[in-house]
Amino acid sequence: MIRQLREILRPDQILTEIEDLIPYGFDGTAMLKERAQAVVFPETTEEVAAVVKVAGQTKTPVVTRGSGTGLSGGSIPVKNGIVICLVKMDRILEIDTKNLTLTAEAGVVTQAIDDAAAREGLIYPPDPGSMKISTIGGNVANNSGGLRGLKYGVTRNYVMGMEVVLANGEIAWLGNKCVKDVAGYSLKDLFIGSEGTLGIVTKILLRLLPRPEARKTILATFNDIEQAAQTVSDIIAAKIIPCTLEFLDQTTIRCVEDFAKIGLPTEAKALLLMESDGPSSVVEAEAASMQAIATNNQALSLRVAANSDEAVQLATARRSAFSALARIRPTTILEDVTVPRSKLAAAVRFIESIAQKHNLQIANFGHMGDGNLHPTFLTNERDPEEIHRVELALHEIFEYTIEAGGTITGEHGVGLAKKAHLPDQFADASYSLLQHVKRSLDPENLLNPGKLFDL
Amino acid sequence: MIRQLREILRPDQILTEIEDLIPYGFDGTAMLKERAQAVVFPETTEEVAAVVKVAGQTKTPVVTRGSGTGLSGGSIPVKNGIVICLVKMDRILEIDTKNLTLTAEAGVVTQAIDDAAAREGLIYPPDPGSMKISTIGGNVANNSGGLRGLKYGVTRNYVMGMEVVLANGEIAWLGNKCVKDVAGYSLKDLFIGSEGTLGIVTKILLRLLPRPEARKTILATFNDIEQAAQTVSDIIAAKIIPCTLEFLDQTTIRCVEDFAKIGLPTEAKALLLMESDGPSSVVEAEAASMQAIATNNQALSLRVAANSDEAVQLATARRSAFSALARIRPTTILEDVTVPRSKLAAAVRFIESIAQKHNLQIANFGHMGDGNLHPTFLTNERDPEEIHRVELALHEIFEYTIEAGGTITGEHGVGLAKKAHLPDQFADASYSLLQHVKRSLDPENLLNPGKLFDL
Repeated sequence: MIRQLREILRPDQILTEIEDLIPYGFDGTAMLKERAQAVVFPETTEEVAAVVKVAGQTKTPVVTRGSGTGLSGGSIPVKNGIVICLVKMDRILEIDTKNLTLTAEAGVVTQAIDDAAAREGLIYPPDPGSMKISTIGGNVANNSGGLRGLKYGVTRNYVMGMEVVLANGEIAWLGNKCVKDVAGYSLKDLFIGSEGTLGIVTKILLRLLPRPEARKTILATFNDIEQAAQTVSDIIAAKIIPCTLEFLDQTTIRCVEDFAKIGLPTEAKALLLMESDGPSSVVEAEAASMQAIATNNQALSLRVAANSDEAVQLATARRSAFSALARIRPTTILEDVTVPRSKLAAAVRFIESIAQKHNLQIANFGHMGDGNLHPTFLTNERDPEEIHRVELALHEIFEYTIEAGGTITGEHGVGLAKKAHLPDQFADASYSLLQHVKRSLDPENLLNPGKLFDL
Repeated sequence: MIRQLREILRPDQILTEIEDLIPYGFDGTAMLKERAQAVVFPETTEEVAAVVKVAGQTKTPVVTRGSGTGLSGGSIPVKNGIVICLVKMDRILEIDTKNLTLTAEAGVVTQAIDDAAAREGLIYPPDPGSMKISTIGGNVANNSGGLRGLKYGVTRNYVMGMEVVLANGEIAWLGNKCVKDVAGYSLKDLFIGSEGTLGIVTKILLRLLPRPEARKTILATFNDIEQAAQTVSDIIAAKIIPCTLEFLDQTTIRCVEDFAKIGLPTEAKALLLMESDGPSSVVEAEAASMQAIATNNQALSLRVAANSDEAVQLATARRSAFSALARIRPTTILEDVTVPRSKLAAAVRFIESIAQKHNLQIANFGHMGDGNLHPTFLTNERDPEEIHRVELALHEIFEYTIEAGGTITGEHGVGLAKKAHLPDQFADASYSLLQHVKRSLDPENLLNPGKLFDL
């Protein structure tokens, strides 16, 4: 197999030494690692297709990855398989300012896409927490969300087309620059969020939007999580759709303050980061309404970013939550449950009760406007007894979420970490349908096998 | 087969007499009709599933339909097949004002959905021209667009979940009320726009939005189509995304005026219907900018609707375009090509040149902001020589559209009418993939066979 790869790629595009393979053996997910036989760095779609053909001929599983920031183990190698790392396919190929589109190779870092859009007065809205390092290909494979999801939606809402290498090594182009197109099935939507199990996305045609004229960032703190949740409900009920409504609990506030030192009130039980963007007049009005609603819900403090530097600082505080929490204990397990918005406060309370019941440290933060929570277990993978309690707690949280009409993963994907729980969310007929689609598009089970489900 | 159907359904749920079958033999598409063996009216999902099982046992093709307003022949029966007409499944099951969702059976008329939303201060944005009679199930099967698509997107953007009867008669539920969910493939996206060929959608969970506070409707006329197209480009370049930017050419203006008598200036070569909605302050500012841009592009006349009655009247003028044109000659063939927005003016010019070249009457109107045109052939199906020229013209228009990076159908679907042209738009690998997905989800080719492509 490696001999065949060497016929396709230059020596510097192939890693096979154990010490070189190790960094490609894990991603952002705790407690998961595996070793590939080779890691390859194709520079063109044709090279990707050629590698997939070698994999097919030699029956070697293929796992595709970008920067490896995934949080469900979706890019963990299959033992002795090939890892296709797309970070060398990192060119922005076109910005079309007339049609408001951008075409990029899969390995472009998400931040670079928004930066390129910004230079034209445009915005690429999906902004996953990892956007400074994650690649757009990884975002598409996971249908990544972000902090602006409430108003702007997720990655799927911005993918107009893609080039994809299929399991048989064929290259297909799906989609176009039309804002409306109903010719044939929307196959691109099948590949978005398929976590590299159905095909390898190599190029992406993205939709951009005019960059909002103004932005206002407000930080409100509360004595009580209920008040924060009620503030979110009242904002939505007032028909305001802010771009951001992010929540941090006290543990997270304290860790972030300790990490970032930006003067967060560590005595607060809950913090809301609220951001409005759009035309100045709307932003002013929305910001004023949101402040009034927070005050009405007994906000302890309200801080309005005086300028864009301070706004960035406040948003960075939220973005650093995971890193800040990861310093506390050896192992950080970041969860991703999502419930219908109306059930959010109850879900937060339930998670608190589960932490008490199992005597665990669970920090909580997330995209409150989306109903998407990131309960974060601060634990130690070397303590099997504690990890057992973590597993019991996770199981109860997933059960609760599904019972509430929610999902076990709002934006991180299923990967390896959640595949045991996927059948609980899907009824029999729909779970079989998932597997059926996989078998049909990848009959040899070559592409990221063992992720999402076993066959 | 009919005996088996009678075991499942009451006699009044089954039509088998020729005179009863005829009205279910055609839809809104010219020149297409076929006769089924039976038309059935299930009232529950279980009845739909039972009918599909009978179809499977007896190898009888099934075509699902709602009100039959389709414009690509997607719901034309298969000869001697079963037609499942879902109009009796017409209940709105829930409006959830906390989560801004609505759940409806597939046979609910689209207008009734928006009306129900409006009573709660909410809006269901997709508004196909046929919304007063078309069903939501038909809208989902075709991923219908509408007049508000520029700002609000299409049906797909509002479907959060669905119940679907699969080809084997199993019932699957896909999706939930979470605004974010990445657990498993997005199978609902595969069924949306699949024109009844992969499954039968029986219930739909829809996302609603807060109803915009204000709305302003402006009608501008021009001496020249270029000026209208430039007005659209300038509006987008000014970072305004109005909810509606509709275009009518002179033939359409004259027909509509003759039909609706609302004082349209029939000497104008082009008309733009522009609508802004949202917070009052934004609407005022956007409307003022759009008027200035139109004036700047030598608008002949500008008319601002004084009140909501007049606004509805102006919008109705646009909505009546198809009916108005249909009165001119015996046969009306409504096309649906879509190009990237930047290529729209050139596409309009090209269609005019094709009309001249083939000596045909082609009226043109459409969703200019979306790049979606409805060139409408006013012709006579009983004149084979003229119909031959129509076919030549259509072929050239499709070729031009695909060359321009466009699509042969922006919102009407492929159905029977465009299936011969689908391979021209899809490269080999992606066309095979469409067929492969169909074969895999409907191995017996029972569901709407012969639509989109032959197998």
